[in-house]
Amino acid sequence: MNAPVIKQAIWIPPYEGRATLVNKGESLCIIDVEGKQVGDFICFNQKEPSEYVSPVHMRASLSSIRLCEGDGLYSNRRRPLMRLMKDTVGRHDFFFPACDEERYRVDFGVENHPNCHDNLTNALAMVGIYPDHLPDPINWFMNNELDEHGDYVIKEPRSRPGDYVQLEALVDVVVAVATCSQDLAPVNGWKVTPLKLQRMFKEREFHG
Amino acid sequence: MNAPVIKQAIWIPPYEGRATLVNKGESLCIIDVEGKQVGDFICFNQKEPSEYVSPVHMRASLSSIRLCEGDGLYSNRRRPLMRLMKDTVGRHDFFFPACDEERYRVDFGVENHPNCHDNLTNALAMVGIYPDHLPDPINWFMNNELDEHGDYVIKEPRSRPGDYVQLEALVDVVVAVATCSQDLAPVNGWKVTPLKLQRMFKEREFHG
Repeated sequence: MNAPVIKQAIWIPPYEGRATLVNKGESLCIIDVEGKQVGDFICFNQKEPSEYVSPVHMRASLSSIRLCEGDGLYSNRRRPLMRLMKDTVGRHDFFFPACDEERYRVDFGVENHPNCHDNLTNALAMVGIYPDHLPDPINWFMNNELDEHGDYVIKEPRSRPGDYVQLEALVDVVVAVATCSQDLAPVNGWKVTPLKLQRMFKEREFHG
Repeated sequence: MNAPVIKQAIWIPPYEGRATLVNKGESLCIIDVEGKQVGDFICFNQKEPSEYVSPVHMRASLSSIRLCEGDGLYSNRRRPLMRLMKDTVGRHDFFFPACDEERYRVDFGVENHPNCHDNLTNALAMVGIYPDHLPDPINWFMNNELDEHGDYVIKEPRSRPGDYVQLEALVDVVVAVATCSQDLAPVNGWKVTPLKLQRMFKEREFHG
């Protein structure tokens, strides 16, 4: 008899971040609750946090700047830590940086705006990870449209309420996700809304 | 009377890297001596090396994945440290990682291959910079051709003997460049050849 599947839901309020462990073989869904909300995502090897999902290495390993079902999320050591199993949207970004204090100050003239860099850093601190250098994110649901010259415009996400991506952990990982704080551009459809993480795993037997 | 322009040439042999200071207002040319040779490039603010040219932030500040004459080379603090003044080729890359030991071992099955990561690290050590995390490179002359889906193939560089880019320093910077070591793919036209750095500056008056 198969062990029952247990689901754990983690809500990420607007302008915040959350982190969770995902064990090898478990799945994590990132659900866009209201639609048009980008989730900035980073992922560390739980046993060796100097290894992390690295978009620049992903672009080399995948020979692509797009993501498809079945693609690995490659690390700075050139191996996949998670795999994209299901994707109801088909448009994401992994060449854009996390927004940070400087982004809003320099490019939008706004001081002390909430931002993904700080929200991811804070979420990681809650699970005991303090990286010297925050890895670049995958920006789930972010919709950058490139033209034939390599220039692009950021459009509203294509995701509708309930759309999601499902990731499988290939090793034990720690994942952090932030509801992107950008409310001054079309990135999140001009407003910031929640995301939901849903972790799915089978009940384990405990041998005390 | 204008002060005479002084030129300092630095040769970078195949499979090696070199670093140099470039003061604010000075120019640096990166010259592809024999043609088809990629130069992996990183650049630090000399006075505050925690600030460095960051391709992921460049893509945000430029809204592009291509480089044009006049573009700034933006830092992780969202301001340009250098500017691309002249470019005789018009095709470069700033979304691909530096090759490293894992690239050759995992993707090509070759152990201990020379690589840009180590060559840049060694070149920086010679000028006293020891970054915890090596920034992503700009890969001058690298020729990635994207299709409409976002997939790409790496082709031989378009650069011919003597082609170059000229950069102007907007603050005092330390630059490191490696002759990319990739000889197992078309990246450098299947062989690794030298690059030449040419630093140009005006004679200064010294007040002893």
